[in-house]
Amino acid sequence: MEPNKILVRGYNLMDLVGKYSYSDLTYLLWQGELPSPNHSRIMDALLTVCLEHSLNSPSVDATRFVASCGVPLQSAVSAGVAAIGDWHGGAIEQAAKILQEGIADMKDTRLSPKECAEKILRDVTSRKERIPGFGHPTHTKDPRTIRLLEIAKEAQLLGSHVELAQAIESLTEKFFGKRLILNVDGCIAAIISDMGFDWRLGKAFFIVSRTPGLIAHAYEQMYSEKPYKSAQWDEIVYTGPPERQPPK
Amino acid sequence: MEPNKILVRGYNLMDLVGKYSYSDLTYLLWQGELPSPNHSRIMDALLTVCLEHSLNSPSVDATRFVASCGVPLQSAVSAGVAAIGDWHGGAIEQAAKILQEGIADMKDTRLSPKECAEKILRDVTSRKERIPGFGHPTHTKDPRTIRLLEIAKEAQLLGSHVELAQAIESLTEKFFGKRLILNVDGCIAAIISDMGFDWRLGKAFFIVSRTPGLIAHAYEQMYSEKPYKSAQWDEIVYTGPPERQPPK
Amino acid sequence: MEPNKILVRGYNLMDLVGKYSYSDLTYLLWQGELPSPNHSRIMDALLTVCLEHSLNSPSVDATRFVASCGVPLQSAVSAGVAAIGDWHGGAIEQAAKILQEGIADMKDTRLSPKECAEKILRDVTSRKERIPGFGHPTHTKDPRTIRLLEIAKEAQLLGSHVELAQAIESLTEKFFGKRLILNVDGCIAAIISDMGFDWRLGKAFFIVSRTPGLIAHAYEQMYSEKPYKSAQWDEIVYTGPPERQPPK
Amino acid sequence: MEPNKILVRGYNLMDLVGKYSYSDLTYLLWQGELPSPNHSRIMDALLTVCLEHSLNSPSVDATRFVASCGVPLQSAVSAGVAAIGDWHGGAIEQAAKILQEGIADMKDTRLSPKECAEKILRDVTSRKERIPGFGHPTHTKDPRTIRLLEIAKEAQLLGSHVELAQAIESLTEKFFGKRLILNVDGCIAAIISDMGFDWRLGKAFFIVSRTPGLIAHAYEQMYSEKPYKSAQWDEIVYTGPPERQPPK
Repeated sequence: MEPNKILVRGYNLMDLVGKYSYSDLTYLLWQGELPSPNHSRIMDALLTVCLEHSLNSPSVDATRFVASCGVPLQSAVSAGVAAIGDWHGGAIEQAAKILQEGIADMKDTRLSPKECAEKILRDVTSRKERIPGFGHPTHTKDPRTIRLLEIAKEAQLLGSHVELAQAIESLTEKFFGKRLILNVDGCIAAIISDMGFDWRLGKAFFIVSRTPGLIAHAYEQMYSEKPYKSAQWDEIVYTGPPERQPPK
Repeated sequence: MEPNKILVRGYNLMDLVGKYSYSDLTYLLWQGELPSPNHSRIMDALLTVCLEHSLNSPSVDATRFVASCGVPLQSAVSAGVAAIGDWHGGAIEQAAKILQEGIADMKDTRLSPKECAEKILRDVTSRKERIPGFGHPTHTKDPRTIRLLEIAKEAQLLGSHVELAQAIESLTEKFFGKRLILNVDGCIAAIISDMGFDWRLGKAFFIVSRTPGLIAHAYEQMYSEKPYKSAQWDEIVYTGPPERQPPK
Repeated sequence: MEPNKILVRGYNLMDLVGKYSYSDLTYLLWQGELPSPNHSRIMDALLTVCLEHSLNSPSVDATRFVASCGVPLQSAVSAGVAAIGDWHGGAIEQAAKILQEGIADMKDTRLSPKECAEKILRDVTSRKERIPGFGHPTHTKDPRTIRLLEIAKEAQLLGSHVELAQAIESLTEKFFGKRLILNVDGCIAAIISDMGFDWRLGKAFFIVSRTPGLIAHAYEQMYSEKPYKSAQWDEIVYTGPPERQPPK
Repeated sequence: MEPNKILVRGYNLMDLVGKYSYSDLTYLLWQGELPSPNHSRIMDALLTVCLEHSLNSPSVDATRFVASCGVPLQSAVSAGVAAIGDWHGGAIEQAAKILQEGIADMKDTRLSPKECAEKILRDVTSRKERIPGFGHPTHTKDPRTIRLLEIAKEAQLLGSHVELAQAIESLTEKFFGKRLILNVDGCIAAIISDMGFDWRLGKAFFIVSRTPGLIAHAYEQMYSEKPYKSAQWDEIVYTGPPERQPPK
């Protein structure tokens, strides 16, 4: 940046604004280059597919509680972003790590995707862990996965990481006793890995995707709603010791 | 700070640790001087009286939701602190401002506390506002106010701001149709004003008071509890437009 | 939201993903309807024009300091979002409020834009305040304003709020002794007002615009940089009292 | 909590306020019981020893940058709390984990403290890691460690974890080529372990200890200072690609 000029990755920002979409420029910031038309299309899908998931989402709850407290908009949104942790959006990062390490391993060992998937699941289950990016408490078939794979196919972006993810999905029944569907986190993980993103940027997609929704929730809570409903004192079960007197 | 030495308001921190309490040193940081024994005693009471208020508190809810998401302890606590806004703890600041401006006004105008209280309430009600620091949704007699005033009396700290606050309380029925009790926020506001604190530090007392409790809630949530219960999808009432098709 | 289906403002999210851009769907969340092609174009420009402003930005500094501390990505981004306050991005909100109230006033009073601008500036200067959205410490001609107005013109979106903003700009020299340029905050404020957005959503544009950049800064700081440079102890000027002994 | 009554760990909060210090009640919240007089004394020392460390601290920098942006007090403090991560205060948690696992290991294996220290350091260095809680960039002898150990000795609280920590310190030269002093983080870790605290509460001590200082910094920044100094545009080294034109 210098007076009257803002350079982003070598481009004058003003040469980009109005020509490239928000998703294109996000791609530029994170990858260092502008996307190809196919990458541009899938980028937009990746950043919109997690746009909203109603109140049934802890980042929205955190945002709504903070928004109820008489704070400016950004404080409520900030609290929601802070909630995008390992168990809420974080599966993208974890799944992308597993897939990227799996593909690196396949290059060394010449395993097939199915063999590699087997190895990954054996490893995960031997540590009695769950496999991030697979299974969903509400959806039996994640509509977001289906849509993303359609678009990735049209954009000719189905690569080795998606293939490995699908191999894992098909083996989940064998390892866990029930089929765990490739959920939206796992699907984003596979696609961004095929696009060359570092797994450590996994949460970034979820953060950007959810931010406009967090803003909409905060705005509604601040200007159109009663304070967000906390547990009421007669609903709370006190689990501490019985009433007692302090010494002396 | 220099190598092997940390100076706080002129004192070597190591000369203070073990001799002065946490509340004393908080007072030193905020006032610039160590407290007298009476100020020391009331300071401890001010910083403990809001220690805990169960789950029925939006800062605790925000902390618990973020703590459910797979984040480190400080992230959950940070979200709870962000919730200490104008409508949650913020009444201390607002009430202290009104009381400090009232006392300044009394010096200029030679009004009595009762006359000044009347003027304040006339002003507030003419703007159709509420009077911060008075009234409570759950408590009919705020036990924290009673205890604080006892201690302030013992410590010979009942000054003009407390007197003005009590004058306001006794006139609430006349102005609002029902008695609004001096609640803990209003009482803290009056006492810290008598101690010489700037009203803009009002929230500071609530923040410090609640932080150990936010930590205890975050810790319990992270290591002993199931994810904090969000609204479930079948409980949420969708209020948007009916289902429709996008154009084209 | 229900199993296998996510409804956003009446639309099935899966019917939107891949067809509408991130900016379109952000518009849908904030306005309740999908944008027209012209609104779609300007929306993308509004959300990209503040994408990046280098390290010379307090939200980036906050993000980098937190990112230096061994925290997950979202914590660093969350701190940056919390910094988007009244003096950093907040001018959009304040300027939009002034412009929207000005236009409402013009409808009542039949003032011309120039007369209304004069009234606004007289009012602001009589309170010895600054006029939000005008002036810039680094840029003498804000390149972002120029570009946004170009695009707004192409999209046939230059309405009464932009006209009023330009009337204010042309009068700044008279009221402040030097010309204060319509900066990017003021320009966004005028355009979103012409698009029908509530001024209380002003910061929302800056938050979404800056989030991908905050992520890029956090990622670089976490994985490619030494800890972000704080003031060193020999640079800090201690302004407290001289060294002293505690009583007793 | 019920109307007119607040129960904390079995005690009526009003029976505690004015009798027990802030540190005592923090102990009650975190341990479930009131402290003995010796635990009470050391608790106060533990919560004050990290009170302040000047601007040379990333949590203070984060607080000051956010405080510069026109936000309420709690937002700035919240950002500082979010910065108390693995590399800023987090060493308490990590060191306490190592010490608590070491003591558990000694019970099983009947190793002496010196043998256990040797085993720990061999393990750490074989993974090419550093040993948390030892070494300091500024202090050659951490004055806070000296003071804490004095108080712990007076309070008859020097137990097996402190002994193990000192055994580690005496072996650091052998393993790292230079003596790494037991710093304040390591010392707090050892003492809280001797007091029976779970290592996962390690950061809690640092958070409570720093909060009054973060508040004092935020308050000073908001009401007495110019905006906190960011890197200026002519100081920033742009490391991106040279200026270029977008395609087409």
